[in-house]
Amino acid sequence: MPVATFKASSKWVEGLKVDTKVRDFSIRMDEPTNLGGSDTGMNPVEAQLAALGSCLTIVAAAFAKQHNIDLQEFWVELEGDLDPDGFLKGKPGVRNGFHEVRVVPHIKTSSSEEDVQKFMAFIKSRCPVSDNMSNDTMVIASDPMFV
Amino acid sequence: MPVATFKASSKWVEGLKVDTKVRDFSIRMDEPTNLGGSDTGMNPVEAQLAALGSCLTIVAAAFAKQHNIDLQEFWVELEGDLDPDGFLKGKPGVRNGFHEVRVVPHIKTSSSEEDVQKFMAFIKSRCPVSDNMSNDTMVIASDPMFV
Repeated sequence: MPVATFKASSKWVEGLKVDTKVRDFSIRMDEPTNLGGSDTGMNPVEAQLAALGSCLTIVAAAFAKQHNIDLQEFWVELEGDLDPDGFLKGKPGVRNGFHEVRVVPHIKTSSSEEDVQKFMAFIKSRCPVSDNMSNDTMVIASDPMFV
Repeated sequence: MPVATFKASSKWVEGLKVDTKVRDFSIRMDEPTNLGGSDTGMNPVEAQLAALGSCLTIVAAAFAKQHNIDLQEFWVELEGDLDPDGFLKGKPGVRNGFHEVRVVPHIKTSSSEEDVQKFMAFIKSRCPVSDNMSNDTMVIASDPMFV
């Protein structure tokens, strides 16, 4: 399959509100009031957790049959820890993003615990968003365009 | 400021549709039909670009005044390249996630080009989602809970 290029466009609205378009879809992001926003949408680090959780779940749904896993129900709970002194204040030694993300998968299945555990390891190893969070990814910002 | 923990919960609906809840917000993700889905929402790698674009834009909006930048309009266009042979087929040597993400910022401002370029470098260096994509982040998956 040829390399696929995915695209998005994020535009400042006002305050800390941002609307992003992806093909025919859109999402509003904002910050909660304690981080200076007006709380009209999830914030970007929460959206990153949503992307990771959805990615793991889609991989589970897409590959269950191939791995002989009886997938009756599936969901993941995600948590990420972040010290706001990093991105808000640039405090030395504090990273700006999550320093740890925890994922708890939940499954309703008739498959064996052993088979499910192997399948979970496969899911995590195959999920693109997990790859991009776990490993270095080149983010290249070009010079700004003045409009 | 104490460490903040952000949370999300992603639940399989049917096919490749997944609904994620974050506080009072929710987002549907799915895959386009050429990747096996039914195209009812952006997919997780697109959502990851949306998180990155929104993060960069929120940091721009939040810090413009402090950096004496006249921010009249601001948006970013994002692109990420991914080889589906990675996550779909596990092809050796092909990573599952984006191997490159490109960001093009657009700004309407009366500030000087030099000041804007410095500000752009600041934005990228401070954005939490950019940090989590650019650098390794621990993603810890616990054993599955059987329900």
